[in-house]
Amino acid sequence: MKNLAILGSTGSIGRSALAVVDAHPSRLRVVGLAAGDNAERLAEQVARYRPQVAALASGAAVDRLRGLVDDRTTAVGAGAEGLIAVATHPDVDIVICASSGTAGLEAVLAAIDAGKTIALANKEVLVMAGALVMEAAQRKNVAILPVDSEHNAIHQCLHGRTRQEVRRMILTASGGPFRELSRDALERVGPEAALKHPTWQMGRKITIDSATLMNKGLEVIEAHWLFGVPAEQIEVVIHPQSIVHSMVELNDGSVIAQLGVTDMRLPIQYACSYPERWDAALPSLDLTRAGRLEFHEPAHDRFPCLGLAFRALRHGGTLPVVLNAANEVAVEAFLEGKLGFLAIPQVIEKTMNVHEVERVSTLQVIRRVDRWARDRAAEMARGLELTV
Amino acid sequence: MKNLAILGSTGSIGRSALAVVDAHPSRLRVVGLAAGDNAERLAEQVARYRPQVAALASGAAVDRLRGLVDDRTTAVGAGAEGLIAVATHPDVDIVICASSGTAGLEAVLAAIDAGKTIALANKEVLVMAGALVMEAAQRKNVAILPVDSEHNAIHQCLHGRTRQEVRRMILTASGGPFRELSRDALERVGPEAALKHPTWQMGRKITIDSATLMNKGLEVIEAHWLFGVPAEQIEVVIHPQSIVHSMVELNDGSVIAQLGVTDMRLPIQYACSYPERWDAALPSLDLTRAGRLEFHEPAHDRFPCLGLAFRALRHGGTLPVVLNAANEVAVEAFLEGKLGFLAIPQVIEKTMNVHEVERVSTLQVIRRVDRWARDRAAEMARGLELTV
Repeated sequence: MKNLAILGSTGSIGRSALAVVDAHPSRLRVVGLAAGDNAERLAEQVARYRPQVAALASGAAVDRLRGLVDDRTTAVGAGAEGLIAVATHPDVDIVICASSGTAGLEAVLAAIDAGKTIALANKEVLVMAGALVMEAAQRKNVAILPVDSEHNAIHQCLHGRTRQEVRRMILTASGGPFRELSRDALERVGPEAALKHPTWQMGRKITIDSATLMNKGLEVIEAHWLFGVPAEQIEVVIHPQSIVHSMVELNDGSVIAQLGVTDMRLPIQYACSYPERWDAALPSLDLTRAGRLEFHEPAHDRFPCLGLAFRALRHGGTLPVVLNAANEVAVEAFLEGKLGFLAIPQVIEKTMNVHEVERVSTLQVIRRVDRWARDRAAEMARGLELTV
Repeated sequence: MKNLAILGSTGSIGRSALAVVDAHPSRLRVVGLAAGDNAERLAEQVARYRPQVAALASGAAVDRLRGLVDDRTTAVGAGAEGLIAVATHPDVDIVICASSGTAGLEAVLAAIDAGKTIALANKEVLVMAGALVMEAAQRKNVAILPVDSEHNAIHQCLHGRTRQEVRRMILTASGGPFRELSRDALERVGPEAALKHPTWQMGRKITIDSATLMNKGLEVIEAHWLFGVPAEQIEVVIHPQSIVHSMVELNDGSVIAQLGVTDMRLPIQYACSYPERWDAALPSLDLTRAGRLEFHEPAHDRFPCLGLAFRALRHGGTLPVVLNAANEVAVEAFLEGKLGFLAIPQVIEKTMNVHEVERVSTLQVIRRVDRWARDRAAEMARGLELTV
């Protein structure tokens, strides 16, 4: 029996994680659940899974939860402290970190410090603090298992092989809904169109990141930290069908790929079962029904976010923190209808251009740079605002 | 330094194996070379690689070789004895068995008995004598490493995983040059058209086997013996681009695939380097240039050989021996222009239908059934001969 804490349990990944628990009741138990503001859904989850500990982002949300749950056996906390209490509960074996944005970072560091296995679905954790997180994980001999389907695929492709055997890692990207649009057409797309992702059902922020290719850019940075490969050995290939989840080219030219149906339960279960592999009651991949698999080079001119992420990774230090913060601000402005689609990379690039890169030595440095970048990006965004 | 014996050194696989030796002169040395009748090419190879031992199929061929090679440091043998002397030479570490047809079987059994690692490219060895070969390999703790690109791919996909994790093995097939022909059109195809394979350059017999899908059928039987999986867990999918070399579906539904350029040096080098993996100076696979990857169900009605092979595997015993022998006879008759393309499976099926299956207990049983099946298949072929 493995005991889970799920950070971000009411989101898309969190609910898939609970579906994996449902499929393996004799192998997985929910010990902790944490969400942001969705007290109502968390109340349902608490009633069903009866975790020992739960948390929400605010005291107000906790109050709403208390009004909805009769049973008082679940200890409920609020804010960063509550999240950390869930992530570090003594009974927890695996922390599934799926809280979006930067909220999960401190909790992940605390969980690593407490010796928990980390199943990581939150990209920002490694994009912002890869150096700190991987150093801590190594020091505590803690495994960081990727839940993102691409990194999970690479983890599977690397199984039983050494880093010396690896020539390239090839991350696949669906290309998003705007893959074939011209620059002119991209100028005019709004949030509604961008929120329609062709192959994956996900949250709003990550769906926009998929449309700009920033999602893939963040994954490139994540791959660097997870697998210890430099930017030069990471490639991105557009694969609209999202069936090949990613690939590893080995030193003799052989390419190992992981393929599967597009269902997040698979990588979540893999991370929970690892190093074992459990049966899953999901349909087999039928390649004869999948149609043709296509692979294209990414169009850097129309999707500059990917190149910005590579630039941030190559420069290193605090530049990925700036990339991530500026992207969050720009995407938010885009979702609010204040910014055009092609202004998203402009905001990020302008913010990166005025940043003086520092070494990521402490969490304090990251927090300070993150705040600075958000302020600067907001300024940049105001300068580029749409005038309707 | 690993010392090689190459059985079938003048054929397509043999020459690729020597190209691998050329690429790794500090890692691989040629100790033995054996060929069928091509004394002229073997003479060149002997002059270049100066093996300790060489062999040809007949005394006459050996005499021709002696007339061509001045140097007398290479001991030269003839026939089955000569082949076995090459395969079991005390200095040999790895025997690359690429002699076509049934010639290699005895030599492989002798090599296993002598404790050599087997790099197997000869399908007939396992199709005819899988039970004997795998039993001997297990008893002698000898590795059988597949050189066929499909089985080599599966070997790579299985790396570091247990048999319990495997749900299905999926062999890819190019589908051959006649993939899209109707039955009527197939009635009329002759040897010239059948010898034009779309993706691989190979010998005549195997090229016809690719066109009938018997090649894939033999590989299904081979996969059964190599990886210990029953017929029910082996599937064949038509993949005309031959880029995905084969796949393994694991018990959670995840599919691991091996992809690569279509160059036999890759699987040969893998077998020579295993468990290491050496750099190869071959071009990387560029999926963005490869175009689309397609996957189709095999058309059993137009290509009945595949189903016959599955039937032979399910029944087991000597039926695969009959399948293989009848196929060799039928393909030979087709190449001589005596038999139509669609008569190949008819000859095989008729021969299988009149066979009483025995257990494969000894090499003698195999030899007897093989002779019987060739005689019966020749009769059946005469009954179906084209009247031009």
